[in-house]
Amino acid sequence: MRELEETPSERPQQRTDVPEVVVARLPQYVRVLNTLLSDGVQVANSQMLGEKLQVTPAQIRKDLSYFGRFGKQGRGYSVRHLLDELKQILGLNSQWNVVVIGVGRLGRAILSYPGFTPDGFHLVAALDNNPGLVGQNVDGLVVRPVEELNQVVKEFGISIAVVAVPGVHTQGVIDQLVECGVRAILNYAPTTPQVPPEVNIRNIDPVLSLQSMTFYLAN
Amino acid sequence: MRELEETPSERPQQRTDVPEVVVARLPQYVRVLNTLLSDGVQVANSQMLGEKLQVTPAQIRKDLSYFGRFGKQGRGYSVRHLLDELKQILGLNSQWNVVVIGVGRLGRAILSYPGFTPDGFHLVAALDNNPGLVGQNVDGLVVRPVEELNQVVKEFGISIAVVAVPGVHTQGVIDQLVECGVRAILNYAPTTPQVPPEVNIRNIDPVLSLQSMTFYLAN
Repeated sequence: MRELEETPSERPQQRTDVPEVVVARLPQYVRVLNTLLSDGVQVANSQMLGEKLQVTPAQIRKDLSYFGRFGKQGRGYSVRHLLDELKQILGLNSQWNVVVIGVGRLGRAILSYPGFTPDGFHLVAALDNNPGLVGQNVDGLVVRPVEELNQVVKEFGISIAVVAVPGVHTQGVIDQLVECGVRAILNYAPTTPQVPPEVNIRNIDPVLSLQSMTFYLAN
Repeated sequence: MRELEETPSERPQQRTDVPEVVVARLPQYVRVLNTLLSDGVQVANSQMLGEKLQVTPAQIRKDLSYFGRFGKQGRGYSVRHLLDELKQILGLNSQWNVVVIGVGRLGRAILSYPGFTPDGFHLVAALDNNPGLVGQNVDGLVVRPVEELNQVVKEFGISIAVVAVPGVHTQGVIDQLVECGVRAILNYAPTTPQVPPEVNIRNIDPVLSLQSMTFYLAN
């Protein structure tokens, strides 16, 4: 809140002050709005969005209020306008080059996943420390040695990495990525790696997700 | 807070009132405490835990306060005691039988993932609607038809399902799971399925995770 007085009224806060949990929900808003748009829905209220996203209408209004005023009281949101704005806010109109580190079983599954490209994430390079894998063609990419990381990051203007290496190597690889200027990391190893505050990391970890649900089964 | 006055002081709230974001962090506490324990660390303060988990020490104290008093002011937490308590709270001392629906490329990767069993999640059945797959042996499990879901759930006392079917089939499969009494669902399709309030769902979706980071790259 410290910067409240310095910002213009239509942008009530610095965007970096938006709670991470709100930011994490925005991509789901985009997904739901895309579906509504292709179903021909032009106007949606917070009730309808709340049902689709399984949060309360009040939460929807609060989330969106971080980014200014989108809807008129009692009239709902223009689906297309809200979608365009959220995509802009999330940087989804850009194309992002992504490097994949680790070309084992999991890395290969990631490289073959067709869901990244339509959303603007281009897997442009695959690296591994196993000399037996370097030089192999995997889903159209020739595997390069991890030693070339810095060069690859510069070559493709990369700011996002996907890490699919064994847990014992994860922190080391992530330290190298940070060193090379990568600012967003998606980690598939079942570890909680440390990154400096200016770097974002998300962990894909099915066991943690399951464990957060057994709480509700047990209580 | 409405139930504050009715609960004994050592358990300040009903556990179901704990914010979901706090519950989602607890498995990470368990992971960090496990590592500390095997490193021979016996006492940890909120500063140390905060660094490992990349949240503030105040957040650690607040998170844990939902479950009563674990540490003494200025003396830190007993690693083993806190670990035992959190495992108990999360239901991690139990063994959980899990059904996997969908035995395509992704389902097979899930069935071969070695990380579930050590944490008490046993993949005991695999179902698919493709007659060409039914009867096949995949990682030690004979694939059964989706029609047998209800029977399988009863047979193994299942309350957790992993769903790895194409997006168009996801909601239908999840409706069937809910119907059969499954109360925790891990969904791998890039959709946001609807479930009733008594059912928990977590979505594993790398694109959503990436999109929540481009916000920070773009702003």
